[in-house]
Amino acid sequence: MFGVTVRDHMMIAHSLQGEAFGPAQRFHGATYVVDATFRREELDADGVVVDLGRAAEELHRVVSELTYRNLDDEPSLAGVNTTTEVLARVVADRLAERVHAGALGDAARKLDGLVVTLHESHVASATYERAL
Amino acid sequence: MFGVTVRDHMMIAHSLQGEAFGPAQRFHGATYVVDATFRREELDADGVVVDLGRAAEELHRVVSELTYRNLDDEPSLAGVNTTTEVLARVVADRLAERVHAGALGDAARKLDGLVVTLHESHVASATYERAL
Amino acid sequence: MFGVTVRDHMMIAHSLQGEAFGPAQRFHGATYVVDATFRREELDADGVVVDLGRAAEELHRVVSELTYRNLDDEPSLAGVNTTTEVLARVVADRLAERVHAGALGDAARKLDGLVVTLHESHVASATYERAL
Amino acid sequence: MFGVTVRDHMMIAHSLQGEAFGPAQRFHGATYVVDATFRREELDADGVVVDLGRAAEELHRVVSELTYRNLDDEPSLAGVNTTTEVLARVVADRLAERVHAGALGDAARKLDGLVVTLHESHVASATYERAL
Amino acid sequence: MFGVTVRDHMMIAHSLQGEAFGPAQRFHGATYVVDATFRREELDADGVVVDLGRAAEELHRVVSELTYRNLDDEPSLAGVNTTTEVLARVVADRLAERVHAGALGDAARKLDGLVVTLHESHVASATYERAL
Amino acid sequence: MFGVTVRDHMMIAHSLQGEAFGPAQRFHGATYVVDATFRREELDADGVVVDLGRAAEELHRVVSELTYRNLDDEPSLAGVNTTTEVLARVVADRLAERVHAGALGDAARKLDGLVVTLHESHVASATYERAL
Repeated sequence: MFGVTVRDHMMIAHSLQGEAFGPAQRFHGATYVVDATFRREELDADGVVVDLGRAAEELHRVVSELTYRNLDDEPSLAGVNTTTEVLARVVADRLAERVHAGALGDAARKLDGLVVTLHESHVASATYERAL
Repeated sequence: MFGVTVRDHMMIAHSLQGEAFGPAQRFHGATYVVDATFRREELDADGVVVDLGRAAEELHRVVSELTYRNLDDEPSLAGVNTTTEVLARVVADRLAERVHAGALGDAARKLDGLVVTLHESHVASATYERAL
Repeated sequence: MFGVTVRDHMMIAHSLQGEAFGPAQRFHGATYVVDATFRREELDADGVVVDLGRAAEELHRVVSELTYRNLDDEPSLAGVNTTTEVLARVVADRLAERVHAGALGDAARKLDGLVVTLHESHVASATYERAL
Repeated sequence: MFGVTVRDHMMIAHSLQGEAFGPAQRFHGATYVVDATFRREELDADGVVVDLGRAAEELHRVVSELTYRNLDDEPSLAGVNTTTEVLARVVADRLAERVHAGALGDAARKLDGLVVTLHESHVASATYERAL
Repeated sequence: MFGVTVRDHMMIAHSLQGEAFGPAQRFHGATYVVDATFRREELDADGVVVDLGRAAEELHRVVSELTYRNLDDEPSLAGVNTTTEVLARVVADRLAERVHAGALGDAARKLDGLVVTLHESHVASATYERAL
Repeated sequence: MFGVTVRDHMMIAHSLQGEAFGPAQRFHGATYVVDATFRREELDADGVVVDLGRAAEELHRVVSELTYRNLDDEPSLAGVNTTTEVLARVVADRLAERVHAGALGDAARKLDGLVVTLHESHVASATYERAL
């Protein structure tokens, strides 16, 4: 199994709903350093998992839709508790849509899976892993 | 599959038994930067894998039982060759006990697995992965 | 010259005033991984620059006053453009006050300087350096 | 499941064939920081996955055959598009040969798998994972 | 004193002249992860050392002139031994020219200094520091 | 001003004397990831601060005299409280002796200064800086 990983980041504001979040229920923010790993059983004819430049561009497009925003006011996330885990899934699902729409090229349709990790500090991160 | 990771560290002294360890048979020590990843198929009602604050607290409790100690004299590790691999398992098993005892909350009983990685330098680490 | 560095982090929300900030004028947030370096010409009688535990505690106290907050509503920062550079100075100045108040011990009054670095992502950081 | 990881690096020159590579078709180079993870279900009698010293030595031997070279002229890679993914597989396969040849000791023949990751910058890496 | 740092990278091929370089005299390559720190005594009216977006853009422009190239054939580096130290100075001097040409804005003309660090692997880096 | 940095590590056991050290008075250990920076106003004829290979070798020699040891029993450190700050100075002073003895070559005698940083965990480090 092969994988390639590209890294980008996003800076958002939000609050979390639920007593379990303690002080994080207050309005605050985070930088998420985002790693997206594309997985595939075999390489394509060029010897790659996916076009690295396109993968980086698509990840950048996805994080650009979220960065510099107040997620509490984001229509596409209405009613969602934007925990790090949930945001990892949002990023992964949006990347998967682009793969399926052909934005990463035809060969990318043979990707097997996707792993997205959001690092929220030097001591905490969350990951979501899905098939493609 | 989702995962959340928390990081802490511990500083211990010990010696290793076995010719294969060469100079590490001498009495020496290590800082282990410890990553504990909690894995779970679905998120709970709050949208998390586990309460991050509690996870960090429990990891801290586990490493506190080992840090600033000479492991060669530690009753709970008597007769154990405290390699990095073995210590990764010790940390994981002790965290698993706390999960089962309910220390991370009732929802945490639905965790699927646990991965513990001990980084012993900038060029070496060991990992232990288990079901919950 | 000696230095010791301790690391902590804070997660805040804010907006920045000024056209130069482009999309960062929108309400958003950041995790700042904070490094505080205490500098001193000579070591004290214990062979340290400063008590590392106390230094970590005081840094934690300072970041705790800012973390999980909307800095646009923070009375102590009213009228301040909370850029990363400015926040580095805020953290450094508050640490300096604690040093002068004796919170790091009497020996710490002999510290020569303080450097605070705020890492806002994997590609950007800001530093403020001052005498003590 | 246990794993141990050792890190080394190599510095190579090469060009990539295929329009998809854009400017990377030009002759250029890369530092690959190489992580090799050895995986195993159970520990050996010494309490380790593999002799860490030997693992580091064998990884160093493998990267030494590639480092400070122009891979376009390397006979063992003739006709190969030396993408990061392909090089991760080359390193993994050469390490696997050494394991099978007994270079990591008899106990190492019980290793279950190998994961090799090549970090080519602070924002991109590739991984290859295989059974042993 | 304040500083802001932006990070980018470049991937080049080259050979080094001089017996002291041993195997690095052979044609090979490197990824340099490049940190550029802009230093300034006082902040500008917006509360920044320099416009972070522009600083990142200009650094990207400078590394783009070098990346994906064979530096042995680069006319602007003819007769230069492109060691990591020398390349750190090349990047710093080119950034300084842009500052002086006004590419980072008028306020940036008040910058006091520039530090450029090139990380060539996980175990080696070089730095060049100059006034502006 | 130029600088080049090489990284190595050492794993030691020790105890610290003084009430201020709390639990670190107990016998424990640490991994120190060691960065040594050699500083120089101008480059030598080869375009380097110092021969990087030799610098790495000499740093390795210095850390090899300390690693895998119980520093409480080390004759060369008798009566010394082996704090991270003190060990940074020990490493720097021993490197300086080698520079003066010509172990890094004749050109290295023109080095201006030396900075040694010991990272003891992901949240703490100490630095010592001296002239040469």
